[in-house]
Amino acid sequence: MNPKIILTDLDGPLADFEGEFLRRWRERYPDEFFIPFEERRSFFFNDEYPEHLRKQAADVLEEPGFFAALAPVTSGLEAVKSMVELGHKVVICTSDIYMNKSGLADKRAWVEKHLGVPLAKGMIFTRDKTLVRGDYLIDDKPEITGALQPAWKHVVFDQPFNRNTSHELRISMDWSNWEDVII
Amino acid sequence: MNPKIILTDLDGPLADFEGEFLRRWRERYPDEFFIPFEERRSFFFNDEYPEHLRKQAADVLEEPGFFAALAPVTSGLEAVKSMVELGHKVVICTSDIYMNKSGLADKRAWVEKHLGVPLAKGMIFTRDKTLVRGDYLIDDKPEITGALQPAWKHVVFDQPFNRNTSHELRISMDWSNWEDVII
Repeated sequence: MNPKIILTDLDGPLADFEGEFLRRWRERYPDEFFIPFEERRSFFFNDEYPEHLRKQAADVLEEPGFFAALAPVTSGLEAVKSMVELGHKVVICTSDIYMNKSGLADKRAWVEKHLGVPLAKGMIFTRDKTLVRGDYLIDDKPEITGALQPAWKHVVFDQPFNRNTSHELRISMDWSNWEDVII
Repeated sequence: MNPKIILTDLDGPLADFEGEFLRRWRERYPDEFFIPFEERRSFFFNDEYPEHLRKQAADVLEEPGFFAALAPVTSGLEAVKSMVELGHKVVICTSDIYMNKSGLADKRAWVEKHLGVPLAKGMIFTRDKTLVRGDYLIDDKPEITGALQPAWKHVVFDQPFNRNTSHELRISMDWSNWEDVII
């Protein structure tokens, strides 16, 4: 076995960001416009929610504790644990919502709770993932750009909003094919 | 001018971590053992404070707001601003004290306050700086190891506790020679 450095995004592949947003949105604004998860077509909410609702949508994402409340993607946690057991180095590499002041701490507490202290300590917080080294980056964002050409291979994590892209490497939403894609 | 990616550590080169620790330590425990800054000889406090005081020393570093309170190293802020003006990409690359729950947010607020939003947004939080790409890493820690061989050149930021090492590139505590060392 050839040990790899596997970077993985947090929101989407491991933590149900979209589900928590939608739950809070429907709770706060039950009579307002919303987009069911399966109908999302763009990575950014702002591209799909009408302009007059964007401030309200942003406010939901900035609620203290938002990121601590995300439901775990069970198959994702299991996949990460398998990778670690197989001897790979897994690094959770995540950005955050800048205006959500508890986001960094909430994300780390989330990882500690669901994956343990070593993975929480190993997290990298960055808005530019091209500055991070690894063999693979598992991420549901379809286009990942930054200061450099990436050193990793982008493995797109399948979501309704990134299905219109032609990525060579794609992990299904239930993570069932990760070993075929990555090794 | 050849634009470089310059990674710089926060505690030490830009924020007076040692000074704030010592100020709080002397305030909390005025009659206890302490080491004046100029006499520090090891990067880690734990190597120098006697065993029975280490828990108290750690508690000081874990106080909420500790990292927000650090005094800025004026010459460091000026150096960073010059680098940006010269067209380099400066990325503040910092670890934190895991048990200090407000550390990540405090550090980012500190950078926003003293260097502005773009540098705060560009920060990378990691415990393993070998996973970050750049041309240089300015850091006062004498030995920086991690999962990979570094891709950057280590520029040691001069401190009393790292003077026993033979680094090829060294920036003085007043930052006056940074342009000679880096470009």
